[in-house]
Amino acid sequence: MADSTKVYRASTTAPVNIAVVKYWGKRDTKLNLPTNSSLSVTLSQADLRTLTTASCSASYSDGDNLTLNGEASDVSGARTQACFRELRTLRASAELADPSLPKLSQMPLRIASENNFPTAAGLASSAAGFAALVRAIANLYELRESPTELSIIARQGSGSACRSLFGGYVAWRMGSLADGSDSLAVQLAEASHWPEMRALILIVSTAKKGVSSTSGMQQTVATSGLFKERISAVVPSHMDAMEEAIDQKDFAKFADVAMRDSNSFHATCADTYPPIFYMNDVSRAAIRAVELVNREAGRTVAAYTFDAGPNAVIYHLEKDKDLILGAFKSVVGGVDGWKAEDTEDAATAEASKISTTIHEAGLADMLRGGVSRVIMTGVGEGPIKTEEHLVSEKGEPNRTWSFAE
Amino acid sequence: MADSTKVYRASTTAPVNIAVVKYWGKRDTKLNLPTNSSLSVTLSQADLRTLTTASCSASYSDGDNLTLNGEASDVSGARTQACFRELRTLRASAELADPSLPKLSQMPLRIASENNFPTAAGLASSAAGFAALVRAIANLYELRESPTELSIIARQGSGSACRSLFGGYVAWRMGSLADGSDSLAVQLAEASHWPEMRALILIVSTAKKGVSSTSGMQQTVATSGLFKERISAVVPSHMDAMEEAIDQKDFAKFADVAMRDSNSFHATCADTYPPIFYMNDVSRAAIRAVELVNREAGRTVAAYTFDAGPNAVIYHLEKDKDLILGAFKSVVGGVDGWKAEDTEDAATAEASKISTTIHEAGLADMLRGGVSRVIMTGVGEGPIKTEEHLVSEKGEPNRTWSFAE
Repeated sequence: MADSTKVYRASTTAPVNIAVVKYWGKRDTKLNLPTNSSLSVTLSQADLRTLTTASCSASYSDGDNLTLNGEASDVSGARTQACFRELRTLRASAELADPSLPKLSQMPLRIASENNFPTAAGLASSAAGFAALVRAIANLYELRESPTELSIIARQGSGSACRSLFGGYVAWRMGSLADGSDSLAVQLAEASHWPEMRALILIVSTAKKGVSSTSGMQQTVATSGLFKERISAVVPSHMDAMEEAIDQKDFAKFADVAMRDSNSFHATCADTYPPIFYMNDVSRAAIRAVELVNREAGRTVAAYTFDAGPNAVIYHLEKDKDLILGAFKSVVGGVDGWKAEDTEDAATAEASKISTTIHEAGLADMLRGGVSRVIMTGVGEGPIKTEEHLVSEKGEPNRTWSFAE
Repeated sequence: MADSTKVYRASTTAPVNIAVVKYWGKRDTKLNLPTNSSLSVTLSQADLRTLTTASCSASYSDGDNLTLNGEASDVSGARTQACFRELRTLRASAELADPSLPKLSQMPLRIASENNFPTAAGLASSAAGFAALVRAIANLYELRESPTELSIIARQGSGSACRSLFGGYVAWRMGSLADGSDSLAVQLAEASHWPEMRALILIVSTAKKGVSSTSGMQQTVATSGLFKERISAVVPSHMDAMEEAIDQKDFAKFADVAMRDSNSFHATCADTYPPIFYMNDVSRAAIRAVELVNREAGRTVAAYTFDAGPNAVIYHLEKDKDLILGAFKSVVGGVDGWKAEDTEDAATAEASKISTTIHEAGLADMLRGGVSRVIMTGVGEGPIKTEEHLVSEKGEPNRTWSFAE
């Protein structure tokens, strides 16, 4: 019989993803069913990742609990509960099929999670967080379900989390069923299919938090007269074009659709009543700078996209790294986040010519005043099982940790 | 026979109008035929007006010419030429019908025009300018055509100019004919129908001129995926609702539609590729301030609208003057344009309570830093014939003038 003091553990890391066709709008707020499909690039966990350990033990007396970055976090929320419930149901049926399995589904869960980036960066950490939570518990329970099957569960925790269960290039198919069983993530291509994709993230300091995406998107659904056209016509065409661009590794096309979709998404926010503005004058200066970089380069070498915040994510290819990094480092080189090894050759003649244009266009002061740090990263892998546990064999926290912000 | 040295003169003033359902997009760029109908409020000429004298004489040897604010202006542009041609054609047929009429249609035109506001204010002066030009020449030629008939001519000079041929509340019916003969302005209501309508204009200094509306709107037509929905569904519903609001003098409804339509217009600009941004962080702070004023007042007392620039036009009713003016004067009271007589009673307890909220919301610094002057005005009359001539009886400039900016 099972040792009642035994602590079962499993740990995983999970990545952040940044959409190039945006998720904005729910048709079912309880199940997180979206009004449109979306498509994202999974970013490298070397730069942005969540590490989560899921553990359970009959000896845990304090019920399910969760620690985020060293601090106790509420698990009573409907979204977290939905993930726990669905995963336990899958484990319970496995236990039913094989009575020799320990009854983990009946044990309290003790979960610890850490990000390797400051939440203050304003990067959607909920996607990586819920993907890691679901993946870690699935590992703990030794579930056989595929990442796509698990994506249906992660989606209920946080919509975009379903896309963080895969690496590379990922689509979230909106589905049509009322129970959400066909609203799931699929991998379009491995990171290795198009490994040259890079992202320069300009973190833009913002005075105060804008409207939360959860409430913002429903205000848009309810009040924007233009939103219907986005979900019925604009996004479907963007999805098709973006899948082609990725399949063909056509960066110009990828960039064109990414920028148009970001514009379309923020346009529906501006058309919300009252209007929602996530971008500020610094964000707009970044857009102008990307336009200048492309114009000066004589081809499309960079693509901007903005989530529900002012940060600019600038996708580009490895081969154009020196051009993009050189141009932006010459403007905001004073902030944290630049990797010496990736930028030492970046001061090319072409890059400095472009940075001169950015200065002449009067964008440099705005960018310098508003960009607080940069993150240099690229396309990466999906969740990775690890033996680095945040919960000890005795069920204690392996460290109490909190990111210096 | 006619005295060949005689100088014929006629002068008029014409108003500025600010749309509450926006004109954005041409279906015919040569005839200025719009993609949608629009609706505007004509503003008082006591604060904003163009004065234009049209004169002609057989003795003028230098052909048609035009002086704007004391400086020679090119008349060879297709839009000005179209206005001259159409007006001359109407005069010529009158001369044909009555041979006793002097042949003014065959004489060179000498036109002088002045604005009583700085063009630097970034207020659409072309509407008042072309309305005054057409009205002055029609007066000179003693044309019998109605303002609506003349609006078809003024429209070819500058689309929104057709609305400045009327006072009060004016609709520009887009029409459907290829020759534009049914794309014209009609007066929905005299200023006297709803004389309590006031406008506080916050002039927002902008670093550099944005995309001109002429090119901007065609970029939107060509590239915005959301634009189709605006012109086919959003604007028609806004036109109906706004006409009802004006007929019923329902300010809450007027404000609701005006703010939604401004948002919708700027959303299609943001959805343009590359995106067009006319509002900046100061404009957005003004939107938030208006939202706060309405929330604090517990009813809708103010409505924002933005044309193709960062200036905020804040419509409100006379009875709420102290509330709106008091709130905004407490924030940007340091700039030019405040009328003592209209604001001396404005420092009410309610107004100061609202201004406190604006400060607490962190909007005051942004507004103070970005608003360079205000204009206090209200709904007003259409073009007014005047004996104040900018061309002397001898055909000379009555003054050389240029607005200090």
